[in-house]
Amino acid sequence: MKIHIVNGPNLNLLGKREPEIYGSQTFDDFLERLREKFPKITFTVFQSNIEGELINALQDVGFSYDGIILNPGGYTHTSVAIGDCVAAIATPVVEVHISNIFSREEFRKQSYVSAKAKAVISGMGLYGYEAAARYFFENRK
Amino acid sequence: MKIHIVNGPNLNLLGKREPEIYGSQTFDDFLERLREKFPKITFTVFQSNIEGELINALQDVGFSYDGIILNPGGYTHTSVAIGDCVAAIATPVVEVHISNIFSREEFRKQSYVSAKAKAVISGMGLYGYEAAARYFFENRK
Amino acid sequence: MKIHIVNGPNLNLLGKREPEIYGSQTFDDFLERLREKFPKITFTVFQSNIEGELINALQDVGFSYDGIILNPGGYTHTSVAIGDCVAAIATPVVEVHISNIFSREEFRKQSYVSAKAKAVISGMGLYGYEAAARYFFENRK
Amino acid sequence: MKIHIVNGPNLNLLGKREPEIYGSQTFDDFLERLREKFPKITFTVFQSNIEGELINALQDVGFSYDGIILNPGGYTHTSVAIGDCVAAIATPVVEVHISNIFSREEFRKQSYVSAKAKAVISGMGLYGYEAAARYFFENRK
Amino acid sequence: MKIHIVNGPNLNLLGKREPEIYGSQTFDDFLERLREKFPKITFTVFQSNIEGELINALQDVGFSYDGIILNPGGYTHTSVAIGDCVAAIATPVVEVHISNIFSREEFRKQSYVSAKAKAVISGMGLYGYEAAARYFFENRK
Amino acid sequence: MKIHIVNGPNLNLLGKREPEIYGSQTFDDFLERLREKFPKITFTVFQSNIEGELINALQDVGFSYDGIILNPGGYTHTSVAIGDCVAAIATPVVEVHISNIFSREEFRKQSYVSAKAKAVISGMGLYGYEAAARYFFENRK
Amino acid sequence: MKIHIVNGPNLNLLGKREPEIYGSQTFDDFLERLREKFPKITFTVFQSNIEGELINALQDVGFSYDGIILNPGGYTHTSVAIGDCVAAIATPVVEVHISNIFSREEFRKQSYVSAKAKAVISGMGLYGYEAAARYFFENRK
Amino acid sequence: MKIHIVNGPNLNLLGKREPEIYGSQTFDDFLERLREKFPKITFTVFQSNIEGELINALQDVGFSYDGIILNPGGYTHTSVAIGDCVAAIATPVVEVHISNIFSREEFRKQSYVSAKAKAVISGMGLYGYEAAARYFFENRK
Amino acid sequence: MKIHIVNGPNLNLLGKREPEIYGSQTFDDFLERLREKFPKITFTVFQSNIEGELINALQDVGFSYDGIILNPGGYTHTSVAIGDCVAAIATPVVEVHISNIFSREEFRKQSYVSAKAKAVISGMGLYGYEAAARYFFENRK
Amino acid sequence: MKIHIVNGPNLNLLGKREPEIYGSQTFDDFLERLREKFPKITFTVFQSNIEGELINALQDVGFSYDGIILNPGGYTHTSVAIGDCVAAIATPVVEVHISNIFSREEFRKQSYVSAKAKAVISGMGLYGYEAAARYFFENRK
Amino acid sequence: MKIHIVNGPNLNLLGKREPEIYGSQTFDDFLERLREKFPKITFTVFQSNIEGELINALQDVGFSYDGIILNPGGYTHTSVAIGDCVAAIATPVVEVHISNIFSREEFRKQSYVSAKAKAVISGMGLYGYEAAARYFFENRK
Amino acid sequence: MKIHIVNGPNLNLLGKREPEIYGSQTFDDFLERLREKFPKITFTVFQSNIEGELINALQDVGFSYDGIILNPGGYTHTSVAIGDCVAAIATPVVEVHISNIFSREEFRKQSYVSAKAKAVISGMGLYGYEAAARYFFENRK
Repeated sequence: MKIHIVNGPNLNLLGKREPEIYGSQTFDDFLERLREKFPKITFTVFQSNIEGELINALQDVGFSYDGIILNPGGYTHTSVAIGDCVAAIATPVVEVHISNIFSREEFRKQSYVSAKAKAVISGMGLYGYEAAARYFFENRK
Repeated sequence: MKIHIVNGPNLNLLGKREPEIYGSQTFDDFLERLREKFPKITFTVFQSNIEGELINALQDVGFSYDGIILNPGGYTHTSVAIGDCVAAIATPVVEVHISNIFSREEFRKQSYVSAKAKAVISGMGLYGYEAAARYFFENRK
Repeated sequence: MKIHIVNGPNLNLLGKREPEIYGSQTFDDFLERLREKFPKITFTVFQSNIEGELINALQDVGFSYDGIILNPGGYTHTSVAIGDCVAAIATPVVEVHISNIFSREEFRKQSYVSAKAKAVISGMGLYGYEAAARYFFENRK
Repeated sequence: MKIHIVNGPNLNLLGKREPEIYGSQTFDDFLERLREKFPKITFTVFQSNIEGELINALQDVGFSYDGIILNPGGYTHTSVAIGDCVAAIATPVVEVHISNIFSREEFRKQSYVSAKAKAVISGMGLYGYEAAARYFFENRK
Repeated sequence: MKIHIVNGPNLNLLGKREPEIYGSQTFDDFLERLREKFPKITFTVFQSNIEGELINALQDVGFSYDGIILNPGGYTHTSVAIGDCVAAIATPVVEVHISNIFSREEFRKQSYVSAKAKAVISGMGLYGYEAAARYFFENRK
Repeated sequence: MKIHIVNGPNLNLLGKREPEIYGSQTFDDFLERLREKFPKITFTVFQSNIEGELINALQDVGFSYDGIILNPGGYTHTSVAIGDCVAAIATPVVEVHISNIFSREEFRKQSYVSAKAKAVISGMGLYGYEAAARYFFENRK
Repeated sequence: MKIHIVNGPNLNLLGKREPEIYGSQTFDDFLERLREKFPKITFTVFQSNIEGELINALQDVGFSYDGIILNPGGYTHTSVAIGDCVAAIATPVVEVHISNIFSREEFRKQSYVSAKAKAVISGMGLYGYEAAARYFFENRK
Repeated sequence: MKIHIVNGPNLNLLGKREPEIYGSQTFDDFLERLREKFPKITFTVFQSNIEGELINALQDVGFSYDGIILNPGGYTHTSVAIGDCVAAIATPVVEVHISNIFSREEFRKQSYVSAKAKAVISGMGLYGYEAAARYFFENRK
Repeated sequence: MKIHIVNGPNLNLLGKREPEIYGSQTFDDFLERLREKFPKITFTVFQSNIEGELINALQDVGFSYDGIILNPGGYTHTSVAIGDCVAAIATPVVEVHISNIFSREEFRKQSYVSAKAKAVISGMGLYGYEAAARYFFENRK
Repeated sequence: MKIHIVNGPNLNLLGKREPEIYGSQTFDDFLERLREKFPKITFTVFQSNIEGELINALQDVGFSYDGIILNPGGYTHTSVAIGDCVAAIATPVVEVHISNIFSREEFRKQSYVSAKAKAVISGMGLYGYEAAARYFFENRK
Repeated sequence: MKIHIVNGPNLNLLGKREPEIYGSQTFDDFLERLREKFPKITFTVFQSNIEGELINALQDVGFSYDGIILNPGGYTHTSVAIGDCVAAIATPVVEVHISNIFSREEFRKQSYVSAKAKAVISGMGLYGYEAAARYFFENRK
Repeated sequence: MKIHIVNGPNLNLLGKREPEIYGSQTFDDFLERLREKFPKITFTVFQSNIEGELINALQDVGFSYDGIILNPGGYTHTSVAIGDCVAAIATPVVEVHISNIFSREEFRKQSYVSAKAKAVISGMGLYGYEAAARYFFENRK
């Protein structure tokens, strides 16, 4: 089973940026443990601060992989183009947010991606990626 | 570990109501398998169509249980009182929606509960309850 | 033919409450005459001030009766849960309002129920219930 | 008893236009049966696609007839002038919509006519005209 | 003189819930002192988390008591039905909020009850109930 | 000096319609006195309930007359097309409303015509037409 | 007959400020000619940039004069207090604006004064004051 | 191939009205050249300032012609009835605007017609009609 | 104990202005009785129609008095500057409105002062000032 | 004559993505036929999913080419920066959308590019590019 | 070179009021150092809590000074009249805010002054006045 | 002292693009003079039309430099991601706009960056960069 993790803007700062919101663990540390937990899943990971490169990444695997875990970061709230891409590809996408976006600024309640995603997880910290991975695994055909 | 599942209005119709949105499994069937999967968790379940009884249910366990899985159904979008209750109690609450509420009517984007919940899962079908249970279990102290 | 009449909050005050808006007839007096006019219809009646009990009432008959006449009162404008229930059940629902809600406060123009109802009657006084009953009767299969 | 039926834009296409919304019966067929059912009522009928001619029609009978059944069609949502006319004349007006306008586009929830009408019926198909006629008949002074 | 105190959702948690907002006194302790201060007033008290039971409580005394002190809690901002009830009954209602609702979330500025109440007190802590009682007493006829 | 008076929908009911808002004088009576007061002005008058005929009337004189007094009635608030016409013609237009539209329904605050008119008079009763006529006369070149 | 002219903020700059909008005549020059035209009217004039002094001025004459001509300038769009004052006094107020405020910025469409005024004139330049004076004179009792 | 061109309000002023927006060519001159360019297309043309007559025109050819080129002028932004008609007829409609309506007033961004049209062209001047004609011609079946 | 009463615009008209809303008592009569009731409180009073003078008054006592009773009148709904002042001073402020502002115009629901006040009383008539005074007295440290 | 075609996000999926909306032809096939039809025009083509690279592409030719055909895809609705670029360059831009964006989601009605474009074509499928090319060709100087 | 500094409401409390937002320095201390730094500039200073006196102050120097530094305080967000004055005078105005108003309450994002000012500085503390002064000095003609 | 200047989309066109808004000086000419004026500051400069590259640039220096001068251009109004980045890094950011964005289109009043910036300068032309640099220099620790 192949799952692509696509991380959006500022997620490369994880462990460094506002730890009271995002925690102090780096994504690499987390990824290592994730792979140990799911030995039957091949995880590939991509991070970019550039909206269009996220679209490229979604398109690259969007007709061949079994699942995509997408954290669009700040683009969640402004990117029609990423939402269009999620609708255009065949691979199902689970949208993940580390913090609970519903308890933050008003503008974070608008999402152009969620309506096109298969499911959305918000507020579980990095564990949200694990929950998404398990969702794909337990519901595989 | 003790987890209370609180199901809101119309969720008693599960398996009967609009199966193209909510699936054809009944909650009891699902619950049985959930208990098998998590033998170390004691699950209690409550369903009501009455907003205030959901509040009663949250208050009843909200200072003693380890976690609450709450599907407020249609009250998600209109109940300040349930949101207030989630903020008032000590037990963390994970809000679960069977369908992806972000891809439905506009008014389902408003939530008075999500901002006060610990985390939100939407669109994973009944599996969302399992994901919430596992979240509590894996992140127990 | 079986029709259930479901009356929402404050409709128990009929004949007593703001007679310039709602008239001075009680619902029981009206019901008696209604039954005389439609001897072939079995009318059952339920009134509650509690939103969730209205949902219970709708669910109770919603897969067996031929029609439901629903006056959701003030819940018309705030209850996603009742609207969800009307969509979930199989029995068609005609929504009735005694006063013309369109000529009252601005917030009474919002309805979460009307979109899910089969039809809506507003402003015909208690006669609206009769019109709804006749609609079910004349259009019975 | 004299009742004027005033039909607005595109209602001349009835039976031809979008039958899944408006049904396949023509208005003339329906009218014939309506007259048979109410032999004591003189029905006159007027249809126009022109907003101002609807106003003319309302004014023509608005101080002499016993009732007006008005289906303003698309002008329901945009015509302050028709609403002003309904308020200005003495004859009571029942507004009728064939489809349930509350379950269609968002802009169909705005009405400049309903607040000035005596009553509103929506979603009963052509039967709505009959219900309106009977309302006038049963509540005649 | 008879005054009914009607407390809405989560007010049973007083003294336990978010003490930085609502204070640490329980309502029973407060009530005892209130009765001592106003020996000529008979106070009855009702609390429920269920919206419709609050309506029942208002209707029960709404044509016989001299005053009602109503704290609708979270229902203040969402309940058209309670507002309708306050308008429908004869007994004057003073709405009381323990915290200053104007300095909290934006959605707490919407009230369906205040417009129908005789007066509103917000932000005086539990003393607000005393101020409301004294208002009824000093302005009795 | 030539002035065209263009009256919109329902203004033919003047003296008959809602006299508490529009007064009890007919427009013909008023016009007679207006002509006596301004013997040097040739007044022509046009009334129609049809939006497009008002546009026709504006175009007919809009490149030859010295002034137009326009009371667009209910079309004031909905007619982009009349506003476009007022902008397109060369003759200056003074918009007149008999009642003070600012103290009526909220939707009467929106005007698509006023921004394109030379000036606006509201609330002076029929005298507003005289004030408009005098404005053209006193400011003639 | 006594008429008070009350000019709001920046109107002391008339003849100096943005002449393409407000013209190049000073108010004193205009006033002299106004007095000549209406020898039977006693005009008093007050100008202030201070909102509350405009209220003082309205109150000073508001129970004794026959009419007030009020140009609230920029306070038109923001002053609930002036609107309250116009409603509180007994003397009728005609609101005058030199420019056509409907063809300027969006925020100039909001007025807290117009709804309480007897009539509104906008866009006639300084002649608007004369039209207002004549309105009072011709409609005196 | 038969194409009907339907021109809305004020388009009869073309060549005369605001030439900086609409150009200085008359529609007749343009039409002559259009017919020369497309000898295989029969063009019929209709212009009216009356909304309902535009609906009549659409209905007249709407079940027999191959295409309709519709410039609804100011009615674009306000006419639900024309939009309903475009949806009701069988002939495909291309909506054409001479100016680029997106660079004009805010209210011109609202269209009740565009959603029901096959395609929309805006800002190409009179050439837009030619582009629409060619679209029908090149994509004929 | 020292309490400053600050009355905003048009409150000097009390007893004279719209008695059906504000009552027929003058403030001086009321004040006399208030002083008799609270002999241990020194009341000073200030009234102005000028927004900035209200700010001056608040600043003058805002670091030395025990309480301020502020009725900002029409400035309640428009004055960010008064709200800023209430936040800036040290003395707690109770905002008082004679009428119930929640049952009046829509724009009276916006308040820039209430969020910064300690408490708000609305709709108790002049008694509201007494209730505010007693609040300060009973809750003095 | 030189025309640059700039295609935005997800347009590289043409022929593959949601064929019921976008058709099943690839852009390369289409382009070949376009070049055959317009042998006198040199077409260059650029596609990117990255917003800023679209800006680069517009700037690259924006002071030397005769025309630009821009399909901003999802960036149409969110990119102030592309709109700024279209305004900044000298070459005229025709905005093209394959589907009729007015009949899709509400948020697709907002465009930051259209107001700055010379013209807009929406809903003609890939033929829209040809129509744009022909517009430039027929209107060349 | 002559520069007038105009400070709005509550700025006289500087050093005393909410020091975590506005700092603990008084304006006089700051002014002394400012004059030392710019010996070639004559600074005059005016502070008032009264909106209209700020307008007076702007008018007094607005046709003779070289620059005005204006901190309208709370009036920034509500004063159309000050904005009108800034537009009316000839002297350029730089608007200064001590705190970063964009990171505070939502209503502070609305400004009626900024659009008419030459430039705006926000969030630099008292140094913002120095930056404004230097701007005038470095860009003097 | 090290300051990074980050320029967003279309700022590479400076001197070439709409000179009536942005001036005719190129950024390189300006930069040379800036370095001469501040010999003790090391200025580095980055420009990109790509949103994500601006984020990269901010992250690159955001934990080591003393200050960042950021002109986000059109991304100011749409980029949550840049705003998130400004909040995430440690180096303070001053946001600079060459033109006064408050006097331009309505949508330019929305900023996702300003709330997270230390300070904002708008409307000072290229001098704004100098003012920002001096702010960092004069307030260095």
